[in-house]
Amino acid sequence: MTTNQLVQEINKKKSFLCIGLDVDLNKIPQHLLKEEDPIFAFNKAIIDATHYLCVAYKPNTAFYEAYGLKGWKALEKTINYLNEKYPEIFTIADAKRGDIGNTSTMYAKAFFEDLAFDSVTVAPYMGKDSVEPFLAFEDKHTIMLALTSNAGAFDFQTKTVEGKELYKQVLETSKTWENSENLMYVVGATKAEYFADIRQIIPDSFLLVPGVGAQGGNLQDVCKYGMNDSVGLLINSSRGIIYASSQEDFAQAAANKAEELQKEMALILNQ
Amino acid sequence: MTTNQLVQEINKKKSFLCIGLDVDLNKIPQHLLKEEDPIFAFNKAIIDATHYLCVAYKPNTAFYEAYGLKGWKALEKTINYLNEKYPEIFTIADAKRGDIGNTSTMYAKAFFEDLAFDSVTVAPYMGKDSVEPFLAFEDKHTIMLALTSNAGAFDFQTKTVEGKELYKQVLETSKTWENSENLMYVVGATKAEYFADIRQIIPDSFLLVPGVGAQGGNLQDVCKYGMNDSVGLLINSSRGIIYASSQEDFAQAAANKAEELQKEMALILNQ
Repeated sequence: MTTNQLVQEINKKKSFLCIGLDVDLNKIPQHLLKEEDPIFAFNKAIIDATHYLCVAYKPNTAFYEAYGLKGWKALEKTINYLNEKYPEIFTIADAKRGDIGNTSTMYAKAFFEDLAFDSVTVAPYMGKDSVEPFLAFEDKHTIMLALTSNAGAFDFQTKTVEGKELYKQVLETSKTWENSENLMYVVGATKAEYFADIRQIIPDSFLLVPGVGAQGGNLQDVCKYGMNDSVGLLINSSRGIIYASSQEDFAQAAANKAEELQKEMALILNQ
Repeated sequence: MTTNQLVQEINKKKSFLCIGLDVDLNKIPQHLLKEEDPIFAFNKAIIDATHYLCVAYKPNTAFYEAYGLKGWKALEKTINYLNEKYPEIFTIADAKRGDIGNTSTMYAKAFFEDLAFDSVTVAPYMGKDSVEPFLAFEDKHTIMLALTSNAGAFDFQTKTVEGKELYKQVLETSKTWENSENLMYVVGATKAEYFADIRQIIPDSFLLVPGVGAQGGNLQDVCKYGMNDSVGLLINSSRGIIYASSQEDFAQAAANKAEELQKEMALILNQ
């Protein structure tokens, strides 16, 4: 999917919501556990109930890997279902991968070819040759960690490196990489005041923003400092939406929570 | 496996060799492609031929994920085979994972419980709360990227952060984390001159050292600057061993290459 197609979807749906599919068998409605594939059954119900309210879904691979082969199979069924039934949806494999060049190419094949996601998240620590293999894929997007939403972000990301914070060095350096137009960035909503500085460095890039809701980030603040002319934001919510209810009505409850966010987004887009 | 048990194995086998199982179907002997599971068939033959020459095996998860479900199944069969037949071997899931706390716990479960590896590699960018969930597992080891063997290591890792290089900040900071005694570190062999400084910060920790052989690192130099009283080194070789031959004799050829390194290690240990 191209960035232009994503922007069109945002304007059509009046939504820049991404729903995180972080499926924990201890948290989903217990009646689903008797299904042959409870993880996929849960995802399918959530997707069918919410697809018109969001523009992206983001399964975090950790939650699938934790269930071994069954989990990987559920991930495969989920991305196939999305690509077949809702091809207009932007899909994100939240995998935070990164390795030396030839190995990153194998990860890129795993997520862009075998699983056919539109995008994958990567970690920057290993530098240029660990990320460029992902960027080489046409019409695919590589979403690099810049400033994350957790407390540990302050351990290294905000430390000063040669006059500016590490996450700013990461942003600036990455602009020089080959096919850098395929980069998006993860910036946590819990640090809304940082968005203005970030937009100075990467005015045009899309930002994937976790941390609204459960982690305490504020949507209005993020939009105030982070939005650009093409919107440029994908706001992720996972637990706040998918675990809105643990009863039979879980999918409808998720849609209600998603609609609350979508309506707030529509107001912001119409301002 | 405890660190003491690993040290005992090193002294018994006179080897601190780790063999990287990075299986690429384009590189393995073509007669294996008619096997039901070519990846596992290759690994089993390599392991049976080399287990007495090394103390650790390190499958890189990228090479398995690239083949989807079949790849994940081959990874599962490989770790199960190692744990059943050669329980004295230290096993490393080279996965370079890292995410916010509850998600890192899911990754830890994937590699320590579902797949029962002794250790997993992780990336430091997201800080303390992305790594501590791994450290909480008793008798399991978390191998954190410090200074990697690729060119991109110079993009961020060697940049100066508050008076010292980022990788040194990572080493020092990580010592303050809970259960930090379960940490090991990745330090590339291509940067042997850095080992002396690194040993000032973490004199006792084990280092996993990629980059000897194919990437140009020198075993003698690494040992000179990096070895401690408990050896403290796991030297990894992947392609140089497992792809020594692409013919029917591939397992024996791999054993011959492994033996060359093991003999060099025995000489160093006997000095």
